[in-house]
Amino acid sequence: MLTTPDFAEITADADISNARHGNRAKCLQRLVRLELPVPLTVALSADTVRSIAKGKMPDMEALTGIFGKGSLLSVRSSSQMPDWGGPGTILNIGMTDAVAEELARTHGRDAADALYMNFIRTYAVDVLRLDGDLFSGTMTPRLAKTYFEDEAEEPFPQSIEAQLTEVLRSMARAWEGTTARLLRQAQGAPEDAGLGLVVQRMALGIGQGISGSGVVQFVSPATGEPQITGRYLPQGQGRAALSEDKAQFIESDNRGPALEDSAPEAVAALREAGSLMRQRLREEMQIEFTLMNGTLQILDAVKCPRSARAEVAIAVALASEKIIPREEALTRIPPFTLNQMLHRQVNPEAKRDVLTRGIAAAPGAATGRIVFSAGAAQSAAAQGESCILVRRETSPEDIRGMHAAQAILTERGGMTSHAAVIARGLGLPCVTGASHLQLDARKKTLTVAGRKVFHEGEIITVDGSSGEVLVGAPALIEPALGGAFATLLHWADEFRDIGIRCNADTKEDVEAVRAFGVDGIGLCRTEHMFFDPIRLTVMREMIFAEGPEDRIAALKRLLPMQRADFTELFKLMEGKPVCIRLFDPPLHEFLPGDRDGIRALAEALDLPVSRVATRIEALQEFNPMLGMRGVRLGITVPEIYEMQARAIFEATVAASKGRDPVVPEIMIPLVSAMREVELVKARIDGVASAVKSESNVDFAYRLGVMVETPRAALRAAEIAEHSAFLSFGTNDLTQMTYGLSRDDAGRFMSAYVTQGVFHEDPFHRLDVEGVGELLRLGTERARAAKPGIILSICGEHGGQPDTIAFARDAGHDYVSCSPYRVPVAKLAAAQLAVKASMVKSD
Amino acid sequence: MLTTPDFAEITADADISNARHGNRAKCLQRLVRLELPVPLTVALSADTVRSIAKGKMPDMEALTGIFGKGSLLSVRSSSQMPDWGGPGTILNIGMTDAVAEELARTHGRDAADALYMNFIRTYAVDVLRLDGDLFSGTMTPRLAKTYFEDEAEEPFPQSIEAQLTEVLRSMARAWEGTTARLLRQAQGAPEDAGLGLVVQRMALGIGQGISGSGVVQFVSPATGEPQITGRYLPQGQGRAALSEDKAQFIESDNRGPALEDSAPEAVAALREAGSLMRQRLREEMQIEFTLMNGTLQILDAVKCPRSARAEVAIAVALASEKIIPREEALTRIPPFTLNQMLHRQVNPEAKRDVLTRGIAAAPGAATGRIVFSAGAAQSAAAQGESCILVRRETSPEDIRGMHAAQAILTERGGMTSHAAVIARGLGLPCVTGASHLQLDARKKTLTVAGRKVFHEGEIITVDGSSGEVLVGAPALIEPALGGAFATLLHWADEFRDIGIRCNADTKEDVEAVRAFGVDGIGLCRTEHMFFDPIRLTVMREMIFAEGPEDRIAALKRLLPMQRADFTELFKLMEGKPVCIRLFDPPLHEFLPGDRDGIRALAEALDLPVSRVATRIEALQEFNPMLGMRGVRLGITVPEIYEMQARAIFEATVAASKGRDPVVPEIMIPLVSAMREVELVKARIDGVASAVKSESNVDFAYRLGVMVETPRAALRAAEIAEHSAFLSFGTNDLTQMTYGLSRDDAGRFMSAYVTQGVFHEDPFHRLDVEGVGELLRLGTERARAAKPGIILSICGEHGGQPDTIAFARDAGHDYVSCSPYRVPVAKLAAAQLAVKASMVKSD
Repeated sequence: MLTTPDFAEITADADISNARHGNRAKCLQRLVRLELPVPLTVALSADTVRSIAKGKMPDMEALTGIFGKGSLLSVRSSSQMPDWGGPGTILNIGMTDAVAEELARTHGRDAADALYMNFIRTYAVDVLRLDGDLFSGTMTPRLAKTYFEDEAEEPFPQSIEAQLTEVLRSMARAWEGTTARLLRQAQGAPEDAGLGLVVQRMALGIGQGISGSGVVQFVSPATGEPQITGRYLPQGQGRAALSEDKAQFIESDNRGPALEDSAPEAVAALREAGSLMRQRLREEMQIEFTLMNGTLQILDAVKCPRSARAEVAIAVALASEKIIPREEALTRIPPFTLNQMLHRQVNPEAKRDVLTRGIAAAPGAATGRIVFSAGAAQSAAAQGESCILVRRETSPEDIRGMHAAQAILTERGGMTSHAAVIARGLGLPCVTGASHLQLDARKKTLTVAGRKVFHEGEIITVDGSSGEVLVGAPALIEPALGGAFATLLHWADEFRDIGIRCNADTKEDVEAVRAFGVDGIGLCRTEHMFFDPIRLTVMREMIFAEGPEDRIAALKRLLPMQRADFTELFKLMEGKPVCIRLFDPPLHEFLPGDRDGIRALAEALDLPVSRVATRIEALQEFNPMLGMRGVRLGITVPEIYEMQARAIFEATVAASKGRDPVVPEIMIPLVSAMREVELVKARIDGVASAVKSESNVDFAYRLGVMVETPRAALRAAEIAEHSAFLSFGTNDLTQMTYGLSRDDAGRFMSAYVTQGVFHEDPFHRLDVEGVGELLRLGTERARAAKPGIILSICGEHGGQPDTIAFARDAGHDYVSCSPYRVPVAKLAAAQLAVKASMVKSD
Repeated sequence: MLTTPDFAEITADADISNARHGNRAKCLQRLVRLELPVPLTVALSADTVRSIAKGKMPDMEALTGIFGKGSLLSVRSSSQMPDWGGPGTILNIGMTDAVAEELARTHGRDAADALYMNFIRTYAVDVLRLDGDLFSGTMTPRLAKTYFEDEAEEPFPQSIEAQLTEVLRSMARAWEGTTARLLRQAQGAPEDAGLGLVVQRMALGIGQGISGSGVVQFVSPATGEPQITGRYLPQGQGRAALSEDKAQFIESDNRGPALEDSAPEAVAALREAGSLMRQRLREEMQIEFTLMNGTLQILDAVKCPRSARAEVAIAVALASEKIIPREEALTRIPPFTLNQMLHRQVNPEAKRDVLTRGIAAAPGAATGRIVFSAGAAQSAAAQGESCILVRRETSPEDIRGMHAAQAILTERGGMTSHAAVIARGLGLPCVTGASHLQLDARKKTLTVAGRKVFHEGEIITVDGSSGEVLVGAPALIEPALGGAFATLLHWADEFRDIGIRCNADTKEDVEAVRAFGVDGIGLCRTEHMFFDPIRLTVMREMIFAEGPEDRIAALKRLLPMQRADFTELFKLMEGKPVCIRLFDPPLHEFLPGDRDGIRALAEALDLPVSRVATRIEALQEFNPMLGMRGVRLGITVPEIYEMQARAIFEATVAASKGRDPVVPEIMIPLVSAMREVELVKARIDGVASAVKSESNVDFAYRLGVMVETPRAALRAAEIAEHSAFLSFGTNDLTQMTYGLSRDDAGRFMSAYVTQGVFHEDPFHRLDVEGVGELLRLGTERARAAKPGIILSICGEHGGQPDTIAFARDAGHDYVSCSPYRVPVAKLAAAQLAVKASMVKSD
């Protein structure tokens, strides 16, 4: 064993560390410690590689001397984290005329020439960056050397030291390149991340006896289930087996020849090695191996490649077998991995005919016929046809059409536009901001420059995971919420210490989340309940009411519908808390915007068209987001909230009959002043008393506030005094803190993020510095004024791991997120609890 | 002198205090101390009156005993502050059959009967609240007593104790009434404010010799100039002289008989009393007096009634004569008093034919012909005709029409709608929210239910001080910015210790403020500069530009116009700082909204109508307030800010030629993140370098930020590091803190204020609790990060006394307000400095 300050032979006792030599060097040392047959390997530290990049070479005589004369060498990257990348492996370093001659003697001329020729090409192209077109595969080494000399203006080097020097220098410099730096920094590598290298004696894989190379792993990369997969290439080198048609299976297989047929003991040894690594490295590894005249050598092992589903299956299996603790299984899975498992995906092997690209706004893939209106989507659904709703952008009126569609595609908008938010809520794939689309809603056509025109009814596929729109119907893979997924969520529930509720407006939402389990509904938006055609008509009558009596008459007709909505939700939730937000949007959202709609409405209401048009115009607002909505409507037209409160309380009575009593939570939106809460509370308490006395049933309820204006956060102390809970609505709070409309920001958000004005879209990821400070202030003040108050975050950010971390640190009771974010949220919450307990026990 | 716990005779040494006995009692004591001939008077404390209201009477024998048998008495209110009101004076208490007989003997039957009859009626109606219709003036006392007995079911009381008891009880109870309480609380009285009463021996004013009563003061109530005004009624009582046709002048007057003609020595004595009060009470008083057989008695004296102009003139005169210090003159004038002096007013004596009422959005009155469009207003102005611009609501496109009009009237909007804000800025009278108006812009008619239809060209008068719209042209009073006004402002400048700048966009704005003097321009909005028709066309070409080159070409044509704008402003401001806000509004504000406009624009740009319509539609936003405007535009379309910066710097060079160097201030609007400032700063610094090198002139400039999003306030520390100044734009900051659009809030703001949801319209008066906290945080953080940074508040609130107090406490350098608010702001600032120095010297 020879160790210098510049390099170290990898032995069981050598001082090899991940931090200095990189993960591959460390992993190889582990294999050595397991007494697996690893060829002699030397590790160069990141400091050494840094020196090499600056021109200071280690003692090359000493380095090559370790391997002995005539050895061929390979060099591989060994960065600290596998994700950070690094230059590709170079094999067969040391091939010279002399070594080639020797090889020809032992392995035959053809094999020797092929090896030599390959190395010359690799050296020329990958090391010296000469033009690859010069070196074809059928050339002789002699001709290749001539071409090399012409191009490089020096002869092909004939010493292993000279070759290795260039290889190391080229790899060291490649690491410093801009692209490599940007790529690894995108993976979270620090500015000063270094590259280790490992130099290994080649196990040739060619020879007279059973010789060749292969790659093997013991689980399916797609499912994570036990299954030997891999390839073996007789007389091959490196990972070539994976791409060569001549490659064999590993296990005996009736589809063709297999290594096991010719060398069962080698496969048995591989199985044993895999099992050993699984136990001792506590991971499913992919092994690169060579057979030399029947002798097994293990060159390298890496964490085996895997799909999201396999990742979960492997972690759960390792923990189930107690190889790793459950805590580790939970922390191994990046939370968003679960997201990919919830949705259909385009089969990675399918051919993709990409029509256009937009923003990947909601994950999953779906195929269907193009429709251009919510109505058409509903018709298609009624006929049992799959459809894709294509709109310039969506609005609340489209909600039923969105329910009916298989996916949503919009020309405008971003990650947080209406379409994106609703689609994620519904679990529908969605691509927004597909700005190269030209939509002609009248002609019902869809055009992308240079492509044929698409008409309503033609079939496309929306891939909301990649942001692509595909022509036709490529094969899709079904989601897999199998045992391992359920087990992982179950474990997450055991460990997490913050509640996870979901935002659910309808029975369908609740059913979507049933598989995952939640602690309750954190945000039930009631306005979507009014877009059903029958209700919409009554709603419009209410809006056109001449005075309070007419308004109350219309609301009376809505009451039984709302009561039925809530009764159903309460029953479905089986006693878990349901937080109902009172009516929030401006009334004009319920009115038609076009001439036809106005004419139809005038007929329905038996009013002159001009009256209807005038009323609609009078309700228009300059900035609806900042206008007459939420509690402002609740105070100015109190009959609406009174109807809703009555529906909630009557549903409470109905749903509690013969069951555990329901304790509804009622949330007031858009509060900016304490007195708003006082006024609404007085009325709602009044309705509660009335329902109690009418029904002769007592019930409890909690009244709280949605904190979504900066002022409500600042005045949280006095607002808390009148509230049983506060739930921070981070969507609107972000809009108001930035003075930025979510619907309008799409136009410049990507430019802003690209230029680094905002680090990230604040509607996508919670702005901890600005919005976060208001959350902190609001939380502190509310808790100081009323220590027991229930606090939470609802809204899109609620499902983000960093928002959950924020909420947990702030001492919130729960977060509430879209149904399809619940698994991610649960896992993130569990990881936080596990990490916190690790810190504590440290 | 008799003093009991319940009442005290008012003598020079008596223990009379304003707090306990009220201001009238205290003032009467001062008159006694000045040895003026005041009839015997007894003061009842507020505690005594409170007891009386609860039914506990003081010792009435003792009380009446003070005055001696046969005396008649009067009772007057004596609340702590004159503004707080109180029940009316009751005279002649003690009139009984016996006293009437005695009076008939000494003064004649008719006089005695008249007195008695009047007292019976007063006692019945004002004290016992009987029906006034029963008691006509021509009745005999005998008949009146019969009616009294029928109605009151008891005989008319024949003892002074009985009468006085009822009078005191009725006055004590009236003070507790709801209306009285609400009225005095509206004047700032505390919940527990009490009422004192004074009981005075009547000086009858009837008799054989020169007898009568009068009221006199020594300054004009309209102008405050020295001038004896008042009336004297021979054989009269109380203040009757002021309303009787038979009353005489005080001084000899060729219009009719005067007291001075018959009793010159009495008038001389009154002159001397007035002069004495002026010196010793340090105020111009109005004196109520009686002559009894030539003997003068002074019954009462109150601060003389006065117009705003007189108030200023009196205070300045008293200070000029060193009767009061200047500090006191400054603090005596409520700041908003000055506002009334800046504008024409409807003559209080003119007949008002009120067409409708709205919100008094900008003070002053103006008469003109109705016009329904900005264009019509400009045509009228071109023909030298006065006009009133009547719109549903105004938008930035109307700005030139508003300049051309004499007043603005809008159907919608509130105190802070576009029309109101601009009108106050321009000093134009404005009534908004005149919701009973029905405007038909196509037919060019204006209707109010039940009135005739008004057509374009008919004459109306807008009274922006009262909120009324009057038919025709009532007489107006000119504003008076005379010597006293100027002197007061000059004194304010001497005392105030915070800068007052004005918001000025145009030469006209600067000229409007010239009379008042300012420390600079705190907010020059550049967007109004683009609404001139020629510029608007170029602006639209810029918006429709195909790419940066076309855009730059259009901007190059705007450059010389902007440069000329700024050069003119800099020269007019003569070296005082000018803070220019870079372009702020969304681009769609510059595009036409109707078909005709779109067609005209398409012709002007030589583009198909459909292209123009599509582009306009593409620029529409859901919430323009929260959209693509301000710095977002500056970063996304950087050419606009670069053009503006160049115009500013070239104007700096031009305006500095041969004068003191101009140091322009450039302000970036709508910042929410530090990086926005960095990016814009880099570009503007680049433009400055270019202009310096091209012109070969060096100049300094300051780049700062308009803090108008909550996030900018929260992140003030890091923003300050890149800024020479921060100016808090409280309009937008209020909108975003509340999540409330100023333009849309009008619909419910009055209901909100009425129900006490908001104490006041936060756009009208700074919300100290919410918005104020963000201001405080922003101020603290900016100063901590950069101690020398210049801080200020601009926007509508800047002219409010309480905002100025807030800014001064926070250590801001200046506030900036509308030109017409400058006098108010200066006076308010001076008052704060005076009060602070008083506290310090305490």
